[in-house]
Amino acid sequence: MKTKLKRSHMCGVLNSSNIGEEVTLMGWVQKRRDLGGLIFADMRDRTGFVQIIFDKEVSMEAFNQANDIGAEYVIAVKGKVHKRQSVNPNIPTGEIEVFAEILDVLNTSDTPPIYIKDDDDVSENLRLKYRYLDLRKSTMQKNLILRHKTAGIVRNFLSEEGFIEVETPVLTKTTPEGARDYLVPSRVNPGKFYALPQSPQLFKQLLMVSGMDRYFQIVKCFRDEDLRADRQPEFTQIDCEMSFVDAEDVIDINQRLVHKVFKEVINVEIPLPIPRTTYKEAMERYGIDKPDIRFGFELFDVSDLVSSSSFKVFSGAVEAGGSVRGINVKGYGDQFSRKDITALEDYTKTYGAKGLAWIKVTAEGVISPIAKFFSEEEMQGILKRGDAAEGDLLLFVADKNSVVYDSLGHLRGEVAKRLNLVNKDEYKALWVTDFPLFEYDEEDDRYVAKHHPFTSPMDEDLELLETEPEKVRAKAYDLVINGYEVGGGSIRIYSSDVQQRMFKALGFSEEEAWDKFGFLLEAFKYGTPPHGGIAFGLDRLMMLLTKEENIRQVIAFPKTQNASCPMTNAPSVADEKQLKELSIEVSKS
Amino acid sequence: MKTKLKRSHMCGVLNSSNIGEEVTLMGWVQKRRDLGGLIFADMRDRTGFVQIIFDKEVSMEAFNQANDIGAEYVIAVKGKVHKRQSVNPNIPTGEIEVFAEILDVLNTSDTPPIYIKDDDDVSENLRLKYRYLDLRKSTMQKNLILRHKTAGIVRNFLSEEGFIEVETPVLTKTTPEGARDYLVPSRVNPGKFYALPQSPQLFKQLLMVSGMDRYFQIVKCFRDEDLRADRQPEFTQIDCEMSFVDAEDVIDINQRLVHKVFKEVINVEIPLPIPRTTYKEAMERYGIDKPDIRFGFELFDVSDLVSSSSFKVFSGAVEAGGSVRGINVKGYGDQFSRKDITALEDYTKTYGAKGLAWIKVTAEGVISPIAKFFSEEEMQGILKRGDAAEGDLLLFVADKNSVVYDSLGHLRGEVAKRLNLVNKDEYKALWVTDFPLFEYDEEDDRYVAKHHPFTSPMDEDLELLETEPEKVRAKAYDLVINGYEVGGGSIRIYSSDVQQRMFKALGFSEEEAWDKFGFLLEAFKYGTPPHGGIAFGLDRLMMLLTKEENIRQVIAFPKTQNASCPMTNAPSVADEKQLKELSIEVSKS
Repeated sequence: MKTKLKRSHMCGVLNSSNIGEEVTLMGWVQKRRDLGGLIFADMRDRTGFVQIIFDKEVSMEAFNQANDIGAEYVIAVKGKVHKRQSVNPNIPTGEIEVFAEILDVLNTSDTPPIYIKDDDDVSENLRLKYRYLDLRKSTMQKNLILRHKTAGIVRNFLSEEGFIEVETPVLTKTTPEGARDYLVPSRVNPGKFYALPQSPQLFKQLLMVSGMDRYFQIVKCFRDEDLRADRQPEFTQIDCEMSFVDAEDVIDINQRLVHKVFKEVINVEIPLPIPRTTYKEAMERYGIDKPDIRFGFELFDVSDLVSSSSFKVFSGAVEAGGSVRGINVKGYGDQFSRKDITALEDYTKTYGAKGLAWIKVTAEGVISPIAKFFSEEEMQGILKRGDAAEGDLLLFVADKNSVVYDSLGHLRGEVAKRLNLVNKDEYKALWVTDFPLFEYDEEDDRYVAKHHPFTSPMDEDLELLETEPEKVRAKAYDLVINGYEVGGGSIRIYSSDVQQRMFKALGFSEEEAWDKFGFLLEAFKYGTPPHGGIAFGLDRLMMLLTKEENIRQVIAFPKTQNASCPMTNAPSVADEKQLKELSIEVSKS
Repeated sequence: MKTKLKRSHMCGVLNSSNIGEEVTLMGWVQKRRDLGGLIFADMRDRTGFVQIIFDKEVSMEAFNQANDIGAEYVIAVKGKVHKRQSVNPNIPTGEIEVFAEILDVLNTSDTPPIYIKDDDDVSENLRLKYRYLDLRKSTMQKNLILRHKTAGIVRNFLSEEGFIEVETPVLTKTTPEGARDYLVPSRVNPGKFYALPQSPQLFKQLLMVSGMDRYFQIVKCFRDEDLRADRQPEFTQIDCEMSFVDAEDVIDINQRLVHKVFKEVINVEIPLPIPRTTYKEAMERYGIDKPDIRFGFELFDVSDLVSSSSFKVFSGAVEAGGSVRGINVKGYGDQFSRKDITALEDYTKTYGAKGLAWIKVTAEGVISPIAKFFSEEEMQGILKRGDAAEGDLLLFVADKNSVVYDSLGHLRGEVAKRLNLVNKDEYKALWVTDFPLFEYDEEDDRYVAKHHPFTSPMDEDLELLETEPEKVRAKAYDLVINGYEVGGGSIRIYSSDVQQRMFKALGFSEEEAWDKFGFLLEAFKYGTPPHGGIAFGLDRLMMLLTKEENIRQVIAFPKTQNASCPMTNAPSVADEKQLKELSIEVSKS
């Protein structure tokens, strides 16, 4: 280094207990200002800011050098801590200042292209291009430090519970988790490809076969899917698997883990046990399998009440096998004008609803464009079912069930958001259990696994696997916090026979099943213990812990929506020589 | 689970303090034998073995069921712990046995294709094909558990020292670390490719630019190189970087880390401070920059003594600018017959030596095929330089320096190995410093970076960068233990100007440098702190800690020499549809 000084303290930790001490600090100049013959500099490092004063009386040399420093210069300062003249109660070091005796400029800086402050509203693309500057912002540093802390707590908790962290391969084989794989051409095996793992699912199950008993890993996973606000091509999973357990055991240990994380990272108490709901109940009450239960507006079903009404939109939906359901925006009726309701209708249409019927209950009676279709008895029945009282607004969707659930499920959240009822400081967790094993893929006209093909059916439903697959429930459980699916897992199939029946139910021929998963089917023959596990999305968990709504706020070097990195310009064109060695060509098109 | 039993203990932890207790165990049948009307089963889990006895008198039902269990069946057993009749002092549970009251068979097993015991000598390929069975072996489980423990100690140590673990991207851009990249075609950006990182070098430096101050990561890295016993396509690095430091600071913290790891993982004391040697000294004394210093046989130089001798092989080598050096196999002369020496000569030839000259000092005088070429004075000089006494064997190579060093450097180890002088229980660590910044690449006729292009030259050598690059020393340091390079690092360049001069010295045009590393050169303009770091190879470290000689013994699911996985059959052929989506084709050839 260009200095003989040795750092004694970090900037942000100094306080009045250090007054009188000689300290040596290293960091960045946040800003410099000249005032009354003195030079002031806010000096910054990872821990925070401290005010440095350059005073001719203390050191003429340091004062003169300080004339040349500007924003983002890297400096080393030695000096004495003094009580500050004008205390700044807004920062931890606000009671002190350091009078510089020695200043060593370690590096200069051009004017940075983005401001180093949290409220800088520059475009995200520019932030990503200059990510190394963006990461100087205290919010970003805090987020990354919290992420580090969270991972540490998880690792220590699981280690104490007897879990062993085992690294599984990144260069591996395609596994059908429902998403597209990233492929890696093999040079040594021309024409062949590795796949990057969508999860270590099969490896962790094989570790159970190997008797590892309890496995975990904080691990990168990869999905080549189109990106959304909470998705990245590579994401990080907290991945666990346990042998000799039922669902209760997995739930028990993992809710204690989540409790510990929230308590130790942000001092929030998640009450234990975390409440549970079945998939069926979640759908009926919230229209969605990852409900946000911080607010009400639960769904109610009026299908039976309107099935023979003269309002064809309602009766027709019921007749066609669908339903009519509503939510009661209880007590907030006067906050929604007709225009607002039209906006909500437009919102539900993005989820496939054809319209949004509504009933307002006011002091003057019921106001509703659809009132005229209903008899007094029908209307009273609907109001009673919806627990309607003066001041309420009832909103209805009539359609096939999937659309009713989807549109009302999301409408709940939208209404709560507009009413500002979503409390970011509140965390409500929920286990959702008893998922269906399959869901029907209309596009492919076949059943697909709701979770993945290794999930165990419930013992009592096993006999329905071939005959009524839609009725088979899975030994699966998701952890939902504030409407995010934070984790999901299941007890696994551990018999080669049942696994083969499962593949058959999913439409695999025996040959296909053995071709793709022969090693698993084979492994299951040699003494496989009952086992199950869970995986948490660390990125999503961090979004909750940091209250960020953009996943890129909790990742050091994320990709943009088109899966590229504006800083490094990855991905980029490869040399012809490289491609030739890999025996591949870029398609002409 | 097919049992209502709840596990109370792991098998291997039971001992005489548990006598009289009722326990419930779950695990595998190692072997069953019937003896004197009783059935004995060795039951196994991750922690070890325990003897189970099925006795009709205790439970007729359990006894009858036990008749059907065989090797690798998965069972749950409830019973009482008894003092064992015939104590087995070889296993921790040898003083007790469990009399089974309940037996639940949780899963059956076919006869496994490999034996579950450490001394099974089946081919490695079969072991990898049935890795889930191979990992049942106690050595493999112990190795993976030690690896977990090691990573935990590293993480906790570094966290306490203020390092923040930050995840860097796996899908990134080509970086020239001297090895071939694995490429990943981008679907969203047709014709473009990500590269898997050979190391997070640039990202960790950018984290220093961002003020993260102290970074670490235990992280997978990738090199598409031909494999050797200690290499894998994906390997794990303990990666660190620190700001505001000199080499001394990095060395200090990391030798304390290594000390802690060896102490806590295998109770071995690595004396601190770890001794240091310069690159120059290492080459002159050991012929290699990663010397094994557990044994002697150091090199000595006789070039000056033989430069005018009549032995043309010697004098010619010196004349051509090379050297003549030897090692003294002190005291072991009588252990090497002429045939043995010929074998050693063949060994040195694999490192390019043209021959191996030798002198034996016996009670009857000097024996040597080359004695006749030397005057008495010359011979006495050589013997004196080699500190030769009765019983010694001197071995010489005459060639250009690189060949002399390489062949004698390896010969030292080979001789020590043949003499059984390599003590596996002894660990000798060494820092090697003052590396040359460049080495000359004869094939490409240009200088290449000895470590990587971001390594800082020594300040006093900076002016030689353009004029005498071969004389420039680097602020680089390697940690060598028992002849393995366990870690390597350096203080980095942190000025855009010096970095550009470095790229120029390496033969990059300004355009190339900016094209490939523009983001780094740009970043260096905005206040980059002095910084440096190190990376340890976790796999190699684990080989040392577990005393394994094959890297596959410390990795759960490794690849074979041709970078494939016999268990999953990765890599494999990809669907045409997948390739089409990725805009690539397999070359016809």
